[in-house]
Amino acid sequence: MNGMTFVLFGATGDLAKRKIFPALYNLYLDQKMPQSISIIGLGRREVSDSQFENHVEQSIKTFSRRVVDDRDKMDAFLSAFRYQKLDATNVDDYGKLLNLVQQRESELNIPENRMFYLSVGPAFFDVISLNIKESGLGSTKGWKRLIIEKPFGRDIESARELNAKLSNVFEEDEIYRIDHYLGKSMIQNLGDLQFLNPVIQTLLSNQHIANVQITASETVGVEERAGYYDQSGAIRDMVQNHMLQILMMTAMHMPKKISQNEIRNEKKKVIESVRPLKKEDVILNIVRGQYRSGEILGRPVVSYRNEPGIDISSQNDTFVAARLWIDNPFWQGVPFYIRTGKRMAEKSTRIVIEFKNAGQKGWANKVASNLLMIEIGPNENVSLQLNSRNPKNGKIEPVKIGFSNEQKEVPEAYERLIFDAIRGDSTFFAHWKEVELSWQWVQPILEAFKENLLPLHLYPAGTNGPTAAHRLLEEDGFKWWLDDEKLQDLSEPVQELVAQ
Amino acid sequence: MNGMTFVLFGATGDLAKRKIFPALYNLYLDQKMPQSISIIGLGRREVSDSQFENHVEQSIKTFSRRVVDDRDKMDAFLSAFRYQKLDATNVDDYGKLLNLVQQRESELNIPENRMFYLSVGPAFFDVISLNIKESGLGSTKGWKRLIIEKPFGRDIESARELNAKLSNVFEEDEIYRIDHYLGKSMIQNLGDLQFLNPVIQTLLSNQHIANVQITASETVGVEERAGYYDQSGAIRDMVQNHMLQILMMTAMHMPKKISQNEIRNEKKKVIESVRPLKKEDVILNIVRGQYRSGEILGRPVVSYRNEPGIDISSQNDTFVAARLWIDNPFWQGVPFYIRTGKRMAEKSTRIVIEFKNAGQKGWANKVASNLLMIEIGPNENVSLQLNSRNPKNGKIEPVKIGFSNEQKEVPEAYERLIFDAIRGDSTFFAHWKEVELSWQWVQPILEAFKENLLPLHLYPAGTNGPTAAHRLLEEDGFKWWLDDEKLQDLSEPVQELVAQ
Repeated sequence: MNGMTFVLFGATGDLAKRKIFPALYNLYLDQKMPQSISIIGLGRREVSDSQFENHVEQSIKTFSRRVVDDRDKMDAFLSAFRYQKLDATNVDDYGKLLNLVQQRESELNIPENRMFYLSVGPAFFDVISLNIKESGLGSTKGWKRLIIEKPFGRDIESARELNAKLSNVFEEDEIYRIDHYLGKSMIQNLGDLQFLNPVIQTLLSNQHIANVQITASETVGVEERAGYYDQSGAIRDMVQNHMLQILMMTAMHMPKKISQNEIRNEKKKVIESVRPLKKEDVILNIVRGQYRSGEILGRPVVSYRNEPGIDISSQNDTFVAARLWIDNPFWQGVPFYIRTGKRMAEKSTRIVIEFKNAGQKGWANKVASNLLMIEIGPNENVSLQLNSRNPKNGKIEPVKIGFSNEQKEVPEAYERLIFDAIRGDSTFFAHWKEVELSWQWVQPILEAFKENLLPLHLYPAGTNGPTAAHRLLEEDGFKWWLDDEKLQDLSEPVQELVAQ
Repeated sequence: MNGMTFVLFGATGDLAKRKIFPALYNLYLDQKMPQSISIIGLGRREVSDSQFENHVEQSIKTFSRRVVDDRDKMDAFLSAFRYQKLDATNVDDYGKLLNLVQQRESELNIPENRMFYLSVGPAFFDVISLNIKESGLGSTKGWKRLIIEKPFGRDIESARELNAKLSNVFEEDEIYRIDHYLGKSMIQNLGDLQFLNPVIQTLLSNQHIANVQITASETVGVEERAGYYDQSGAIRDMVQNHMLQILMMTAMHMPKKISQNEIRNEKKKVIESVRPLKKEDVILNIVRGQYRSGEILGRPVVSYRNEPGIDISSQNDTFVAARLWIDNPFWQGVPFYIRTGKRMAEKSTRIVIEFKNAGQKGWANKVASNLLMIEIGPNENVSLQLNSRNPKNGKIEPVKIGFSNEQKEVPEAYERLIFDAIRGDSTFFAHWKEVELSWQWVQPILEAFKENLLPLHLYPAGTNGPTAAHRLLEEDGFKWWLDDEKLQDLSEPVQELVAQ
């Protein structure tokens, strides 16, 4: 691997501390990093190089999945780091940065390969990229790449604007839009599971599948992100990016040859085929929810509207469920249900594929459906629900068969993604076309939410979300699988709780 | 359940002791037996009722999967038993038996429902059934049934003769031919697995299946049955009955409605469709083997020819492997391989279904085949071999997912089968047409063996059988799955060991 410079904007921020430094450290331990690397942290605060090194070391000790107790190794790793105070809007600071970058390139004798990681608020994406260009930082003899975090716009228009601005500085193939769900190993395994297993390949078609359910539920509430979240809601924070990316990865037809371009192409085909919603269809296919007070693990928690920093009359969505149709020959007639929410009964990201009953007369009601279940987090496993006769009592019972990945030694999403960006492999990043088409699909929902065209269902914290999300499936004769039945009963909101 | 009489011929024999008494006792514990039952044991020896009761109790204590420590229960159970000395060829003894049966029927006030269980050598089947008729034992006002153990004939002709004789006394639907493999819960589960699971149903066709492998291997040698076994060989002892029955159960197309007649009909369709062998085809599709000395679990064991009671020049088969084709639209083009042997590396009865690779270009050699594995004994489990990428190192690895049945509380084959016979359910018994068609398929093999048209491959005890059995699959581009690779190497017999 050739030498390179890793320029981190927002180096004193939370993401850097929790994810980026630990990821870089683990890549270093695994020798998945160039021998010669210059890492330059940038932040608004005045911090000395040694203070910064201390900060990096503390981050690693607190958040890394592994910490190797080897002083020499740690010192060698930390020696790559430098810090510079930078005001993102101050052109002069970029001149200084260029000097530092070049000085280190010369000291370490590394080519002008420059990675710019924007771990900052979206308000700065524009100005930083402009200044990268203006200052000459972007005029390299080697490669240059941009890693950017969500949110990428807040609607179709702002996303297009942002993209146009970034495109003045970076080519599309130089832009690595992180969607950390795409860094999860089980998401990356989806294609392999299909591609490497004829039996799964055979089963994955509308001939055999009744419906597909994608859930991403959290138990946490809004936490410290009230300002951002109350303006975004689950629809922007989760659905437009993570949920639609998982949908694409689940529904894409595995190409015979796995390559960046092929996968990008197949993902695009999926999102292009998702049936668009007219604004008036939104009410029939989308459920909007917001948590009220309730209990999480026996501990009482306040309602969303009583969270610090949230307006007491907020109409913001902390829960969204949707029914989607993918209009291609492969998925024609198979509903996809997605749902995501905060303050739910359980932290879980999973895909459940329910198979059709194969015409067992009189049995349909007695035996459970066959299910293919893929848990993406917090644990990783793949399982299949079959029916078998219990030899002890002769009763038919569902049995789950499956395998789990041990979490301990599995690289984290950020490790995988930063490693890929270093190698220049953009397979598991969100490409502009995907982002744009996702915003396009989401746009009528944003408008319907804004115009209050559909009810805001209040659901008690600690439940599986509003009843309306269950009705969405019941309308088609289905139900959400794997919900804890007891908890589900609790979630029954009374009618008057629907706030308009 | 109505009262009945259970007449057991061979009551002092080994099978009664090891299997029948424990089965009756467990049925009694599970209340799967009529409240009023008369059990009459018959044997050549003079034994008092109380001695017989002792014998039954000891059998149970030694061989039952459960022994309930309840004197009252045991006494109540034993009170159903009576013993009579009987010479199978002496008509007078049957008269006495009729008197005893009637006396007990009257004492217990039970209807004339009479079950005759022939746990005796095949030489007596004929004379006993004749005497049942002659004595009037078979002229009942209730039902009468015959349970008969293998062997049912030793070739097509003798089987037909025997059947003709039994048919003079019993109707076909009164005859329960025990094949204890059909009593194993995993064999009985085969239909359910298919019927209750659309995903398995979908996969089970020649479109998706490359081949099917059925193995029944034992580690024991000929044991105390030298006289019988040296005249029968694996072909009569295992292939004609158990192996072909498992084949029928595996390959039968599950009827929409599970009933005795439907299953009988579907099994018959399978055995009718098995492509007949001409005598000259035998050499191409059948492998005959005999164990030589070797090691079982580190302990040296003698060759078959050196076993007590075996002729030093015996040509008898202790191992048979075969390739079969089922000529129906469902299985067209899918080879079925069966093999069975004594003194093999492992005690195992299993079915392995190997799936076709689904056209992954360039991958075929790198990834393992998908397999559906059904272990029937000594453990019961169903598993599926898939391929997955190991998230730790990115390598593609086969993973097995499956479920096991806890053996402890599972009723034994004899419990299930005797219970079924008591209830009059003959689903899991071998019907005459199946027996006849099985003999018909086996007949050219018997003749080819007799005429020594194919080599007798000697294989070392403790191995997976002769190399020729592996070549049989290699010819088609396959291999036996789940054989211990190390043991397999050991089994390489040198050429001169092929005895003609």
